[in-house]
Amino acid sequence: MYNSEDFLVTRLGNNTVPSPLHLSKETGDGVFNYINDEDRVLYKPTLEYFNLCENENIKPVSFEKAGPKEKIYFDPNKTKVAIVTCGGLCPGLNNVIRGLVMQLYNRYGVKRIIGIKYGYEGFIPEFNHDIIDLTPEMVEDIHMFGGSFLGSSRGHQDPAMIVDALERMNINILFTIGGDGTLRGAQAITEEVRKRKLKIAVAGIPKTIDNDINLIEKSFGFETAFTIASDILRGAHNEAKGAYNGIALVKLMGRESGFIAANAALAVQEVNFLIVPEMEFELHGPKGFLHILRKRLERKNHALIVVAEGAGQDLFLDKEIKNDASGNIKFKDIGIYLKEKIKEEFDNRKIRYSIKYIDPSYIIRSAAANANDSLFCNLLAQNAVHGAMAGRTGFIAGYWNSQFTLLPIPMAVKEKKKISIEGELWSNVLETTGQPKSFKNSSDTEILRLK
Amino acid sequence: MYNSEDFLVTRLGNNTVPSPLHLSKETGDGVFNYINDEDRVLYKPTLEYFNLCENENIKPVSFEKAGPKEKIYFDPNKTKVAIVTCGGLCPGLNNVIRGLVMQLYNRYGVKRIIGIKYGYEGFIPEFNHDIIDLTPEMVEDIHMFGGSFLGSSRGHQDPAMIVDALERMNINILFTIGGDGTLRGAQAITEEVRKRKLKIAVAGIPKTIDNDINLIEKSFGFETAFTIASDILRGAHNEAKGAYNGIALVKLMGRESGFIAANAALAVQEVNFLIVPEMEFELHGPKGFLHILRKRLERKNHALIVVAEGAGQDLFLDKEIKNDASGNIKFKDIGIYLKEKIKEEFDNRKIRYSIKYIDPSYIIRSAAANANDSLFCNLLAQNAVHGAMAGRTGFIAGYWNSQFTLLPIPMAVKEKKKISIEGELWSNVLETTGQPKSFKNSSDTEILRLK
Amino acid sequence: MYNSEDFLVTRLGNNTVPSPLHLSKETGDGVFNYINDEDRVLYKPTLEYFNLCENENIKPVSFEKAGPKEKIYFDPNKTKVAIVTCGGLCPGLNNVIRGLVMQLYNRYGVKRIIGIKYGYEGFIPEFNHDIIDLTPEMVEDIHMFGGSFLGSSRGHQDPAMIVDALERMNINILFTIGGDGTLRGAQAITEEVRKRKLKIAVAGIPKTIDNDINLIEKSFGFETAFTIASDILRGAHNEAKGAYNGIALVKLMGRESGFIAANAALAVQEVNFLIVPEMEFELHGPKGFLHILRKRLERKNHALIVVAEGAGQDLFLDKEIKNDASGNIKFKDIGIYLKEKIKEEFDNRKIRYSIKYIDPSYIIRSAAANANDSLFCNLLAQNAVHGAMAGRTGFIAGYWNSQFTLLPIPMAVKEKKKISIEGELWSNVLETTGQPKSFKNSSDTEILRLK
Amino acid sequence: MYNSEDFLVTRLGNNTVPSPLHLSKETGDGVFNYINDEDRVLYKPTLEYFNLCENENIKPVSFEKAGPKEKIYFDPNKTKVAIVTCGGLCPGLNNVIRGLVMQLYNRYGVKRIIGIKYGYEGFIPEFNHDIIDLTPEMVEDIHMFGGSFLGSSRGHQDPAMIVDALERMNINILFTIGGDGTLRGAQAITEEVRKRKLKIAVAGIPKTIDNDINLIEKSFGFETAFTIASDILRGAHNEAKGAYNGIALVKLMGRESGFIAANAALAVQEVNFLIVPEMEFELHGPKGFLHILRKRLERKNHALIVVAEGAGQDLFLDKEIKNDASGNIKFKDIGIYLKEKIKEEFDNRKIRYSIKYIDPSYIIRSAAANANDSLFCNLLAQNAVHGAMAGRTGFIAGYWNSQFTLLPIPMAVKEKKKISIEGELWSNVLETTGQPKSFKNSSDTEILRLK
Repeated sequence: MYNSEDFLVTRLGNNTVPSPLHLSKETGDGVFNYINDEDRVLYKPTLEYFNLCENENIKPVSFEKAGPKEKIYFDPNKTKVAIVTCGGLCPGLNNVIRGLVMQLYNRYGVKRIIGIKYGYEGFIPEFNHDIIDLTPEMVEDIHMFGGSFLGSSRGHQDPAMIVDALERMNINILFTIGGDGTLRGAQAITEEVRKRKLKIAVAGIPKTIDNDINLIEKSFGFETAFTIASDILRGAHNEAKGAYNGIALVKLMGRESGFIAANAALAVQEVNFLIVPEMEFELHGPKGFLHILRKRLERKNHALIVVAEGAGQDLFLDKEIKNDASGNIKFKDIGIYLKEKIKEEFDNRKIRYSIKYIDPSYIIRSAAANANDSLFCNLLAQNAVHGAMAGRTGFIAGYWNSQFTLLPIPMAVKEKKKISIEGELWSNVLETTGQPKSFKNSSDTEILRLK
Repeated sequence: MYNSEDFLVTRLGNNTVPSPLHLSKETGDGVFNYINDEDRVLYKPTLEYFNLCENENIKPVSFEKAGPKEKIYFDPNKTKVAIVTCGGLCPGLNNVIRGLVMQLYNRYGVKRIIGIKYGYEGFIPEFNHDIIDLTPEMVEDIHMFGGSFLGSSRGHQDPAMIVDALERMNINILFTIGGDGTLRGAQAITEEVRKRKLKIAVAGIPKTIDNDINLIEKSFGFETAFTIASDILRGAHNEAKGAYNGIALVKLMGRESGFIAANAALAVQEVNFLIVPEMEFELHGPKGFLHILRKRLERKNHALIVVAEGAGQDLFLDKEIKNDASGNIKFKDIGIYLKEKIKEEFDNRKIRYSIKYIDPSYIIRSAAANANDSLFCNLLAQNAVHGAMAGRTGFIAGYWNSQFTLLPIPMAVKEKKKISIEGELWSNVLETTGQPKSFKNSSDTEILRLK
Repeated sequence: MYNSEDFLVTRLGNNTVPSPLHLSKETGDGVFNYINDEDRVLYKPTLEYFNLCENENIKPVSFEKAGPKEKIYFDPNKTKVAIVTCGGLCPGLNNVIRGLVMQLYNRYGVKRIIGIKYGYEGFIPEFNHDIIDLTPEMVEDIHMFGGSFLGSSRGHQDPAMIVDALERMNINILFTIGGDGTLRGAQAITEEVRKRKLKIAVAGIPKTIDNDINLIEKSFGFETAFTIASDILRGAHNEAKGAYNGIALVKLMGRESGFIAANAALAVQEVNFLIVPEMEFELHGPKGFLHILRKRLERKNHALIVVAEGAGQDLFLDKEIKNDASGNIKFKDIGIYLKEKIKEEFDNRKIRYSIKYIDPSYIIRSAAANANDSLFCNLLAQNAVHGAMAGRTGFIAGYWNSQFTLLPIPMAVKEKKKISIEGELWSNVLETTGQPKSFKNSSDTEILRLK
Repeated sequence: MYNSEDFLVTRLGNNTVPSPLHLSKETGDGVFNYINDEDRVLYKPTLEYFNLCENENIKPVSFEKAGPKEKIYFDPNKTKVAIVTCGGLCPGLNNVIRGLVMQLYNRYGVKRIIGIKYGYEGFIPEFNHDIIDLTPEMVEDIHMFGGSFLGSSRGHQDPAMIVDALERMNINILFTIGGDGTLRGAQAITEEVRKRKLKIAVAGIPKTIDNDINLIEKSFGFETAFTIASDILRGAHNEAKGAYNGIALVKLMGRESGFIAANAALAVQEVNFLIVPEMEFELHGPKGFLHILRKRLERKNHALIVVAEGAGQDLFLDKEIKNDASGNIKFKDIGIYLKEKIKEEFDNRKIRYSIKYIDPSYIIRSAAANANDSLFCNLLAQNAVHGAMAGRTGFIAGYWNSQFTLLPIPMAVKEKKKISIEGELWSNVLETTGQPKSFKNSSDTEILRLK
């Protein structure tokens, strides 16, 4: 459980510069009002939580509401900004870059904006990457394309060297667009900045195609991702039905959570088995996956299986664990493993079958954002700018209860958001697929019904 | 302002039938829990509202949370259900129909489901429309297509005659999928049912492509609608730039609110003028639209204008007002009117220009739902079924703070949801388009900046 | 019937400059060969025509094959090129512009390329439009967008003034991308150039979204157009089925030929009535359209009607005829006229119905080219460059029997390509729609079958 | 070189049944004319070939023109038809099935049509697959979906057993939709039928997503395939540019020919290296691929590589060769091999890079046909029906010089259609990619230019 104090965003100092936004301080004049420092969004919007807080006299947990402030910290004329994108591609990266530049340049009047190439390593001299001066003209059309206009990279870089570079270039605000590892990096930079008593704001725009960042209702690019995944699942369903005992096996993203897989399955309604990291999963035995799969083929002669990349990792437990350049645990490839095990099972039993394995991850993540994500990226970028210009630091631009929020980075990276096996989403997945609640032999699952 | 009591949903009686869903009553067993009757979603998830309620000892306004109940009212074996779709087409209609049938048939075991053809008039003998027996096989693929599998119609029908038909066919639950007028009809049916002391549940699934139903965060099909509109705006932008003083004028849906237009404009970022019903709008004078448009063409030589169909209706005030078959005010065509006025203006001033008028409404509304709407429709339908099976009546399946709710119909049709001219959405539109906050001469708007 | 002599393309002079393309003169070395001046493509690739020519000793009609020549006329270092786009938008315009620039700059080494803004009027001083220096960097991504990067306009301009401008700017080659009117203009420019004894090549890339240019198998953008039209017809079919006696009426492009409408109808297979300029069409009487439509509604209760914009123009015969700025006959709006007549018919007969009218022309023509058109545009542009660099003038880049050709402009504009009412395409349309072969009362058509 | 006699299609007997199509025998009556038995399409539509034939008195090679005949062989009332789909999925399979059923049922009045499940094995009793009675209602919407409504399989089956089944079921016409192996099977069935002196027509609809069937200008599904491939290449390009020394490696279909890869590359214009089976390819050495790739990365820091699945097979020459169930040579996976070799190269040289490998084959082939392919599939199916009803057997429905043809199966399977390394298509690929004409060290290629 959280405490309200955990969610106070650090401020660089007193805000004394009038905002250039010409918004309003009063209701009724037909002009949008500045956000007050006290405006906060409740963590749990339920009556139950309300009653609990009231009865037990608890201050409800809440998040700072994002938005424009009447007084800001940085003087736009004297402010220089850097933008960096880190980690893997995600639909909407270019929309966020564009949104930051447009908001800074057109709305706040910050004219000096630089783009750092290829992630955090762009700060490190030995890599010798170029710096790009970003202008509205340059970024005008980039949101029509997938990928990252700035390039990206994985990998930890020394926060001290990054702050050296920020100092050298006189940067006042750093926007980092990236996932868990990137945000931890941003936090380390924030701390190094504080240690040096600098006045540099560090703002994160959380990027996770898996939609697994804590306390963020949805992350940009996620909807585009499961939309494209849905189309691919339809094709995979055609592959499954197109052959006798046809099996289509699709691996989707989801290192620690299966949100893309679950949402795509709910959108398409044709998935027969959905295997995610959050669930118990055994291959063998009467309640194991292979047995259940075989039973389905006997009845229906085809099956569409979707597996999230981080699922079933305990099947590899005996083998050593690796980390990738970002410090993420490097996952064994469950998709290929599962394909091999299915082949083994059916070959051994001399059952005719046909299996097609599909791994569309790069196709999904390199696509351009759809309309809803485009809109969302833009608002996210705008709110990140509002926060940073108001002197907030060590924060990310979040989204909760359909409102934009500002969250301290440490809370966002404390743990991963996961599908609750006891929640509504998973319940719907079970209904849609008709699969048992787990593939674990020791489980007391009744296999009630198989579609 | 609302009172909590306004949001109590009517119940047909005591729930005594055990749910066939095999969910859980306790946390920690890995199975989704039934929803309690007391579970409610707060209207305003802000700390400010929390403090107000606590300080002034107000019971916060909240909505009944939707979901499966442990005890239900109707015995599935003895239940017969009717489904009807009314009003104009909307992406997702078939997903909702399919979702209702699948949930009723597969999950609750209700096997007698009929479809009423062509809206409420399908109940009225003189129209002599067929009745369709709906089965999972029949609706399996309908969600891949736009339109309504059942057909639809506008127009008020006598509630007494509809209840006569429900009685004649031994219907226990009526699901009506439709907009404002349809829901008012559903409420009238509910009242007629009560008057006759019948035990028929009436459940509404609110359909409004305009996203303008009160107390509903988003309506199904809305996202698909603004997504398609976005693509069309990109083409319109090409038309505008493709000619000297090129003007592209797109009329989008939005009888009383401009949500589709506003969201599409924010997704595309190329709209120069957005005219919605919520704003003040004059054509002539120094702050009038035509003057501002002319100024833009002088600087940029092209303009993309989006107008919501219900905008500028006061321009027609002197003429009589008509109602369409559903009782909606029949709007004068602002798109064609505006095109004529623009032509007049530029012809009179002998300024060379080229205008292209685009009215894509039927193209948008007849499309199939996108992935996110597909998923949403399904959940909406499931929750409507949960509510009705639990004996709720005169309600709609709603969505608020990212949770599904049950709302009494009268609250949903009390007023229309509109864009707040003083809110964040409109503020973002103004920033994106660069247009003044109103086109009214008496307004004190400074025309600060024109992009 | 044509003569072979009609298809000789004018040459500016002897070709003495070696091509910079480094292709081959011999077969078997694994390098593409230069095209010989004698390479020609047969007009009619049938055995019947072969036998006729052989028996009657006729020289078969043939077209010059397009492609790179070993010797060219213009010295790339000394060549300056202008590109202009005229008339309405069409998918692929930007691909053609890009293809011309890339081919000229990268392959031939022509570095001085200018873009003329807003069509032929960009040459005329009084319009005072800018000139753009075109480089590969500038056009690199333009093919991802619909519209015309250069802007366009309709309207005749004085050829003498255009040639004045070409002389003033020292242009050696003019590429005009446009339709019938534009090509007539190009021919007039060619003649003015010849009169002045200048050595300026004039090359046309035929643009007609209607696919109606004579002796051109397919025109760029046409496939994209009927593809988008197909999607719109699917939605329209949903509209028709969504209401009792629902009528969806879609107007598609096609001033003098119904190719877009016919191809879209064959792709979609849901159109019930297809009305094109080439067919006989009466509204009233027992074989007239309104009667046949009514009969269908009685049987099926819905109808999807597609009308090409140039159809049924004799219905307006009594009214005066106008020309638009390009000299095209300005067509009466058959779509709106038909809608009114249908309403009249059903209102008068007190038959309940619902009609939806859809005019998607601007949506279709402003879209970006699909993959096949993108590829085609590029090859078309490349072949236009080959022709012009080899000193051909007064020609268009054509396509016939799946090969690229060069055609004298006068042959291309001599008449319009039309659907043969006695041909296979129309036969297939009749089969797909089930409509009678004409809607003319004096016709001897048996109404054999109505689907 | 071919002889005219090679292209005579076998006829089952004299045609004595009047066609039920009600077409015309004369020109000028506004009704499509029946095709004469003598109507033929020239193989080479060039003037050069014409002159050669005339001068040397050669009968030009030509193909039978497809189309409706005035007299047909089979009496529709007494005719029973079987349809089977074999081999891998391909966009348009369902359109062809639907087209056959609609044409047979609606146009010719053949009411007894059965679908064989899962390819040729559906004829073999031991597999025990169901037979489906096909009706217009059943297939009405199947063209909206990818896959095969009938299911498919690979693998040779005994022609005698298939003819046994045809006899048992009283089948008069067999339509087989499949590739090279399937057509060889169809030929074997044709011969077995002849040996038994049966009057069963065997008609093939050639299916090859690779577009590699001899004497067929384009095959159905091919355009859809390279269209989807194009979108995927755009994403891959984003992946390449998104990382420092980013390499995106995409494997596309193309066992013996690289048409999909080449067409996609020409449509997208962003491919840097295209590797197809037709080209010489070495990995190592100064003109080998790895060296050239390294040089590009040094200059540009990213590369998009496309490899057709059948390319570079000589790299595996030392290893044994396998056949798949259809008798196709089972290709070693060049994509994975190439990825490993690239990694080796850059790892060994300690050059930083990032490689993304994408294999979208199943995604592409399981998609629904696009508009142009939908139209094409329909016409292909119609012409196959015309041919079979007219008693042609052992033939395929072809397409040449934009006309539908009938070809004897042996000519279609004699050899594969391949990209000519000396032809225009490959020349364009070289220009677009900027790659050398081969990656062979012994080649005399000057590496003239690298983009």
